[in-house]
Amino acid sequence: MSDTATDYRQMWADLGLNLEAHDMLLGAVGQMYGAAYMSQKDRPEGMSYFDFVISEIHGLRIKELRDHQAAGGKIIGTFCVYVPEEIIRALGGQAVGLCAGAEWAYDEVEQILPRNTCALIKSFMGFKMGQVCPYVEAADLVIGETTCDGKKKAYELFGEMKPTYIMELPQMKRPDDMVLWRGEIDRFVAKLEEVTGHKLTAENLSLAIKEVNDKRRALQRLNAARKASPVPISGKDALLAVQVAFYDDVPRYTEMVNKIADELEARIAEGKGVAPADAPRIMVTGSPMSIPNWKVHDTIETAGGIVVGEELCTGSRYYAKLVDESADTLEGMLDDIAEKYLDINCACFTPNPGRIEDVIAMAKDLKVDGILHYALQFCAPYTIEAYSVEKAATEAGIPVLRVDTDYSMEDIGQLSTRVEAFLEMVK
Amino acid sequence: MSDTATDYRQMWADLGLNLEAHDMLLGAVGQMYGAAYMSQKDRPEGMSYFDFVISEIHGLRIKELRDHQAAGGKIIGTFCVYVPEEIIRALGGQAVGLCAGAEWAYDEVEQILPRNTCALIKSFMGFKMGQVCPYVEAADLVIGETTCDGKKKAYELFGEMKPTYIMELPQMKRPDDMVLWRGEIDRFVAKLEEVTGHKLTAENLSLAIKEVNDKRRALQRLNAARKASPVPISGKDALLAVQVAFYDDVPRYTEMVNKIADELEARIAEGKGVAPADAPRIMVTGSPMSIPNWKVHDTIETAGGIVVGEELCTGSRYYAKLVDESADTLEGMLDDIAEKYLDINCACFTPNPGRIEDVIAMAKDLKVDGILHYALQFCAPYTIEAYSVEKAATEAGIPVLRVDTDYSMEDIGQLSTRVEAFLEMVK
Repeated sequence: MSDTATDYRQMWADLGLNLEAHDMLLGAVGQMYGAAYMSQKDRPEGMSYFDFVISEIHGLRIKELRDHQAAGGKIIGTFCVYVPEEIIRALGGQAVGLCAGAEWAYDEVEQILPRNTCALIKSFMGFKMGQVCPYVEAADLVIGETTCDGKKKAYELFGEMKPTYIMELPQMKRPDDMVLWRGEIDRFVAKLEEVTGHKLTAENLSLAIKEVNDKRRALQRLNAARKASPVPISGKDALLAVQVAFYDDVPRYTEMVNKIADELEARIAEGKGVAPADAPRIMVTGSPMSIPNWKVHDTIETAGGIVVGEELCTGSRYYAKLVDESADTLEGMLDDIAEKYLDINCACFTPNPGRIEDVIAMAKDLKVDGILHYALQFCAPYTIEAYSVEKAATEAGIPVLRVDTDYSMEDIGQLSTRVEAFLEMVK
Repeated sequence: MSDTATDYRQMWADLGLNLEAHDMLLGAVGQMYGAAYMSQKDRPEGMSYFDFVISEIHGLRIKELRDHQAAGGKIIGTFCVYVPEEIIRALGGQAVGLCAGAEWAYDEVEQILPRNTCALIKSFMGFKMGQVCPYVEAADLVIGETTCDGKKKAYELFGEMKPTYIMELPQMKRPDDMVLWRGEIDRFVAKLEEVTGHKLTAENLSLAIKEVNDKRRALQRLNAARKASPVPISGKDALLAVQVAFYDDVPRYTEMVNKIADELEARIAEGKGVAPADAPRIMVTGSPMSIPNWKVHDTIETAGGIVVGEELCTGSRYYAKLVDESADTLEGMLDDIAEKYLDINCACFTPNPGRIEDVIAMAKDLKVDGILHYALQFCAPYTIEAYSVEKAATEAGIPVLRVDTDYSMEDIGQLSTRVEAFLEMVK
């Protein structure tokens, strides 16, 4: 791999990365991945694709994106499920996630942001300030949004370091909010047409809707397999699949995930699982988990539980809903996109009964033994909504463990103890 | 006062207050007020009105509000400067603030809200859960808003304890946001018409606009006097005047504030001040300060500084802008109301250059020696925007002290030390 590595170093240098720091980062991610993933038994063979993806996470995929740019395409960075990937793709862009799953350059970040800022926000700022995220460095434009106070205000500072465009997500879901949001979709199209130099048409958008829906359908298949007992795939592996969905080439990714789904369906027919049939079935809900944030899943599965579903932005909020494919005009397609995206139930909305309903419905469908409500510390929307989730789940007879944490490993001992006690209790 | 006190106890009991806890609260507020206010030298005589108001804060004023209700009027609780008081007043309602300036019943609050929630939010929830705020108990309806994540989500839980209506404030100030906000004003009118049983007309609204503008004009006069050197009124007293504006009878309040302004103008003519002409002139900007939150002002003025202005919701954001009075149709008046309110520069907006401009313009106009940026801990909008305020002020040559704090007195020693060092430095 030495030749390839040399190639990448030049590419990373061209992107302005801090090479020394970046080496450290890649080393740490590799080590974390090895510890959390490679020790798993009986993994689906198809997961080797994701092993490869992670091993090349800042290598081959970045090379592909740079080639895409060299051919005139654009790279659009974002990490929010409300940013319509279909439009980016229809205009010849590639959507990529921002690095946001690990502590990085917090000393620098805390010069400009309060220490009491959620880990996700400190992380994406830190990866930028520390110059170790090739995705953000390669991006022609970053799309931010107004989903929470922290991101909304942090993007103002981020925008001084990188071209950034902010979409305003409304805070309610009434007809007037849809009017605002529909206008926001039009403004997003105009901005991306300007940046890409392409024109959105019914043809290119229709194709992109189909391709992105196919990606989400593949994830729906993979996740549907987790209803089975024994469960044919670990929660960690299923989480990784959604995390990579934010970065990867769409058709290739869809093909690979469908292959895994085939394999999982065969496993179910054989009654083959990755955990005993009596392992406690846990669903996770709350704040998003970006690569390499596998802490909660790893803790649950190390303790003998099995995660069977994620009501997360890196989970069902990403794949559960599709854009209607029946429209045949551009306006109609954009209406359908606006509708699908506003229909996602993030805790940033008020009121937000849809998320509570989603959580309870998923928990029942997946026959869970317990729910772990995971929130990043200082993430007001999820830490506050946790109360309502817990209340509804308790009324439905489902035990809940609330975990408010961050990206550090300092609380891992306490977290393990709490998770072990919870698994013991629910079984 | 024993007869009156007895009357009030029955009223408080009728309101469902926890009488024992409420006695403790009133005792504590009285003590805090005595310590912070009554020791001041050379106060304007007109401030005796506010001494009376505070001594009767849960007594006479509540009695007036109960009488208003007995006569068929409604009480509308809110503590956000974006809720249009003119409309409440035109419909025969009285707007009152929610108690939110002291630590109360945090143990109960932290059962439902994260500990990492800003003091203002924990406080208004605590006053409700501890049943010690006659304003909230007397209110027929509470108006919440979506200005920040914490309030937005906390109001969902508050709404389970008290009839609550939420206004959606947009997060940007573009034409489409004004469309949403203008619709929000219409929905607010419809809701209040339903609650009050009255109909909004050009006549009653025009009168209410005039009366509320008069109140704000009186505060503008009072605050304009603070430009003088020596300063004719303490920052604490000026802050109190704005704090009471949220609760008091409008015409009486306006008259009393104008009397104080007369007195201040006479003092200026005489060259009379409450602090030496060379006392460091400090402006405060940031999160709101509700009664009895006088901590920062008290610390500055105890240390020998003088607060000459507040760019706060309990400050210039409350009084600096007026509703245009020239419209002669109901629709035109509502347009003007929508415009005036959306023009306020809270840190909840993105981007929010208007606040930075306001801070710098005020600081120059008031010839301040330094700015104290005050933010409640865990208030993401203000703690993050503090960076941009500090940057702009530093570029304008104005020193800034950043204080992130809460309602406890635990940090008072450290705060005093920092403030003393800052005053020493700026002078």
